[in-house]
Amino acid sequence: MIDYQAILDEIYQRLQQRVDKGEVASYIPELAQVAPEKFGIYLNRIKGDDFYVGDWDEPFSIQSISKVLSFAKAFSLQKNQVFKRLDVEPSGNPFNHLSLLELENGIPRNPFINSGAIVIADMLISLLDNPKEDFLQFVRDISNDQTIQFNKKVAASEAETGYNNYAAANLLKSFGNLKNDVDEVLDFYFHQCSIEMNCKQLTKAFYPFANRGKCMQGKPHLTLNQVKRVNAIMLTCGFYDEAGEFAFEVGLPGKSGVGGGIVALLPGEFTIACWSPGLNEKGNSYLGMHALELFTTKTNLSIF
Amino acid sequence: MIDYQAILDEIYQRLQQRVDKGEVASYIPELAQVAPEKFGIYLNRIKGDDFYVGDWDEPFSIQSISKVLSFAKAFSLQKNQVFKRLDVEPSGNPFNHLSLLELENGIPRNPFINSGAIVIADMLISLLDNPKEDFLQFVRDISNDQTIQFNKKVAASEAETGYNNYAAANLLKSFGNLKNDVDEVLDFYFHQCSIEMNCKQLTKAFYPFANRGKCMQGKPHLTLNQVKRVNAIMLTCGFYDEAGEFAFEVGLPGKSGVGGGIVALLPGEFTIACWSPGLNEKGNSYLGMHALELFTTKTNLSIF
Amino acid sequence: MIDYQAILDEIYQRLQQRVDKGEVASYIPELAQVAPEKFGIYLNRIKGDDFYVGDWDEPFSIQSISKVLSFAKAFSLQKNQVFKRLDVEPSGNPFNHLSLLELENGIPRNPFINSGAIVIADMLISLLDNPKEDFLQFVRDISNDQTIQFNKKVAASEAETGYNNYAAANLLKSFGNLKNDVDEVLDFYFHQCSIEMNCKQLTKAFYPFANRGKCMQGKPHLTLNQVKRVNAIMLTCGFYDEAGEFAFEVGLPGKSGVGGGIVALLPGEFTIACWSPGLNEKGNSYLGMHALELFTTKTNLSIF
Amino acid sequence: MIDYQAILDEIYQRLQQRVDKGEVASYIPELAQVAPEKFGIYLNRIKGDDFYVGDWDEPFSIQSISKVLSFAKAFSLQKNQVFKRLDVEPSGNPFNHLSLLELENGIPRNPFINSGAIVIADMLISLLDNPKEDFLQFVRDISNDQTIQFNKKVAASEAETGYNNYAAANLLKSFGNLKNDVDEVLDFYFHQCSIEMNCKQLTKAFYPFANRGKCMQGKPHLTLNQVKRVNAIMLTCGFYDEAGEFAFEVGLPGKSGVGGGIVALLPGEFTIACWSPGLNEKGNSYLGMHALELFTTKTNLSIF
Repeated sequence: MIDYQAILDEIYQRLQQRVDKGEVASYIPELAQVAPEKFGIYLNRIKGDDFYVGDWDEPFSIQSISKVLSFAKAFSLQKNQVFKRLDVEPSGNPFNHLSLLELENGIPRNPFINSGAIVIADMLISLLDNPKEDFLQFVRDISNDQTIQFNKKVAASEAETGYNNYAAANLLKSFGNLKNDVDEVLDFYFHQCSIEMNCKQLTKAFYPFANRGKCMQGKPHLTLNQVKRVNAIMLTCGFYDEAGEFAFEVGLPGKSGVGGGIVALLPGEFTIACWSPGLNEKGNSYLGMHALELFTTKTNLSIF
Repeated sequence: MIDYQAILDEIYQRLQQRVDKGEVASYIPELAQVAPEKFGIYLNRIKGDDFYVGDWDEPFSIQSISKVLSFAKAFSLQKNQVFKRLDVEPSGNPFNHLSLLELENGIPRNPFINSGAIVIADMLISLLDNPKEDFLQFVRDISNDQTIQFNKKVAASEAETGYNNYAAANLLKSFGNLKNDVDEVLDFYFHQCSIEMNCKQLTKAFYPFANRGKCMQGKPHLTLNQVKRVNAIMLTCGFYDEAGEFAFEVGLPGKSGVGGGIVALLPGEFTIACWSPGLNEKGNSYLGMHALELFTTKTNLSIF
Repeated sequence: MIDYQAILDEIYQRLQQRVDKGEVASYIPELAQVAPEKFGIYLNRIKGDDFYVGDWDEPFSIQSISKVLSFAKAFSLQKNQVFKRLDVEPSGNPFNHLSLLELENGIPRNPFINSGAIVIADMLISLLDNPKEDFLQFVRDISNDQTIQFNKKVAASEAETGYNNYAAANLLKSFGNLKNDVDEVLDFYFHQCSIEMNCKQLTKAFYPFANRGKCMQGKPHLTLNQVKRVNAIMLTCGFYDEAGEFAFEVGLPGKSGVGGGIVALLPGEFTIACWSPGLNEKGNSYLGMHALELFTTKTNLSIF
Repeated sequence: MIDYQAILDEIYQRLQQRVDKGEVASYIPELAQVAPEKFGIYLNRIKGDDFYVGDWDEPFSIQSISKVLSFAKAFSLQKNQVFKRLDVEPSGNPFNHLSLLELENGIPRNPFINSGAIVIADMLISLLDNPKEDFLQFVRDISNDQTIQFNKKVAASEAETGYNNYAAANLLKSFGNLKNDVDEVLDFYFHQCSIEMNCKQLTKAFYPFANRGKCMQGKPHLTLNQVKRVNAIMLTCGFYDEAGEFAFEVGLPGKSGVGGGIVALLPGEFTIACWSPGLNEKGNSYLGMHALELFTTKTNLSIF
């Protein structure tokens, strides 16, 4: 019998006292203001109690974590049609993402690199009546939490400084892989990334991926087949060019965001979310990566 | 209760009648002579009976599948020291492998691309008294089968035509990431790749990776921690630039070879091996990929 | 004594009857409407008569040829300061230009690839009081022709469809190598490219580069030292990834544009301009390349 | 009237007293032993006297400078046939050369990068009866100097440590762009690079490139057409990824070698050779680059 609370407490103690907590993302001005010492973990067990520690109930910007939810939405609506416009291979690219996009004629490597997520945003704009409102509602429904909101200041901040995303969207457009207007697509994309959730909400939003497609209320949002595929992409592509390292050290499907959040899951067993805003040099939460590594090492719970 | 035999039979029937069976690898002259219609599957369940169909007992050249075994051997001897000389990230490279090796100063992306496996071969030469004999003995022991052999004609054939591997080894040497002589390292490497096994033997050789490190005789060969890590690398890097696709469609750690073999596994549940010499355009067994995709779809058994 | 008129006539006859004239650029809608059979040559000798044939007096869109003039202007104003923000090396890149820009942290390879010319446009906006008007006046003055105009329809057409240039400008911005607003810079850039000139006017505009910096009226526009450097960049970078081929086959500094124009020069001897809107697969005028190759072969006049 | 001796003396004085003279190449052990303070210049005027200063009569390893001579030999024997197996574009590659070779399916960018010169060596082996002897004789004849020799110790030193060249040759072989045996080709190549000449001899060897194909004895070695093309390739590809810089700062066709030699020429006017073994970070002679830059600035003699 595993004493989850003791394990979370020990991880928290051990990591919280580290002097080096990584660097808070500075390229989005609004995000740069978050206190670097924040740290929380929330464990949501499929058939069992929840456990948590630290700042688990403080909302933060989920950023790239939203890519899993937008992809899941597009995948559920379009099925394998989505793969006409993007691929499912890891990018394996330590430097940057436009090079590969250019080399591969505007077909993004996978839905979790920026260019791939922008293509998904473009699809959702074509598919949804009120794209931003409808997507936010989807996130609220899958999380069973109607309080979840965009942070409009963060979205505006990214719209002002997100030149690299404008570059990606225009490059996609030049290859004919963007149907809607660049500004419209990026407005959606920046809003999607600006969604704020706390660790507990994140574990609820990702519950269906660990529970054969059904959310905590038992409502089906995705098929088992779709859930398995989304999990596979998270494992191979969820952590930029540190995906192999995360699979190697942690061994769970998961996704990180530059807001310092990481969510991961073991099918049939649990979802878990960590938050600490300091990032390592690959752009993933420094304490979050270590916390999950310690968690799977101590519990021996991983997909491998 | 899953009727494994019925599932294997159905997969076999359905795929065996396909006209398109892919292309047999021609760059190693000895391999080009294998009959393209060969097709076999062997399922080895951890706590249960075995099931099989077709040419499961016919030996073939395991080629790159050997990279998992050589890495496992080096990893068990050197622990995390191996990662001073190579990484664990997917290469994500559709064209070729020397470019990345050059760009990353002679540090191979992972142990399952050729350059990575050549570095592992170099380590084993430094570590083993009689490298080729000792490694073959390790493969025999982990498989509990003393009849396993090198195919010296295949090894010689590859030594004569394997210019790309000579290029990789020399490039590694130019970066100081090869300690032994290029010819000596490649002689070992070509022998390792020339090992012949049938589907049944392969499922036995990979049994420890599904059984917490212990082979069918219950003898520990690797720690649970090591096994989880090897499985993670298989999942993210086991199928060249089709790794994401295999994770997506099949959802199991596995490894393919240009001899047409594929071995895959579900921890705690089974190891499975397929063999069909025709390859798809990515260099993985055409029927083998489809067989495993059908198997995990029909059984709903995958890590995700 | 060379009979220039006979040589131009022969080249014109020989090439005019070719069935294959290349493809008119279609990515800028306005340019796609030009008649593909247009073909003219104008030779402007520094110390001697002019010679011409065909449609030498019909104006066309100079497009990338304008990059030499904008660079010359910025270079004359900023001297070697310009090289803090771009380089002078050939890009050698057959596929595309954003990859290199990304790999080299936003420093364009040279002023004649799009990203380099966009950086130059950004400099001119900062340096000139009325950027578009002042630059047009510079082109008129150096050409001694006050009738030269922007084609506002072409500029607007490119602003609507030039996604790749928007991608480049945003990528430059993301690396901090664009000081002004993306839209403002590209508005200037698209206007600069839309300038219309005929072959005769082009030979006048490039006269200073063959005449130690002085235009036909004898007025100095650049120093000898600057002229030599601009000529060097034309030779190594003037024809995208066909620069080596042009140096090899023609042996003159020159510059091409997707409008089908090419201008080239031999210091102290002549400037020459060709126009034929059909392009080869590298994006350079198909007949124009051949015309210049024949011209230097027949006259034995080249820098080598 | 230019006072060449005064100019050479001034350049010599000014550069000789520099503390920073670059780094002597260390990757070929034999070359690492050369005294770094050596420095000589020799000017050979086509229609006029010679001028020289410093260590102009001391032999050094010409290394990559030999690529011009081997290419000239192959080009004179095979005409444009040589371009079936290599191209004439600058590589523009700051990092390394195998990447491009791989990306472009074994067709080297130009004859002056290592892989291109190795293809040329392969051609010469097929074309010459006694490849090494015949090529050395060609160099002696074009230079009108029968004392020129291979340095067998340097050739042997490079054969032992030239792993990068072995990688390139094997990669070429894997693409089918090497007809002869890898070891045989590299033995020829390492000998060719090991040729020793002094500055005066180099200016004689390159005399035909400035004199319409005829050597100092008036004997034709190449056609004017061939000479112009070799000069064009020297200009665009003669200095690795510093070719643009050399064209920009010096403005002459030329070629450098890691032995610290540089030879350059102005058609109809002169050939000039510099030697100083310290290299800049691009692998070109540090003082030699500066000497030529000062020489063309002071004399205003350049092709542009």
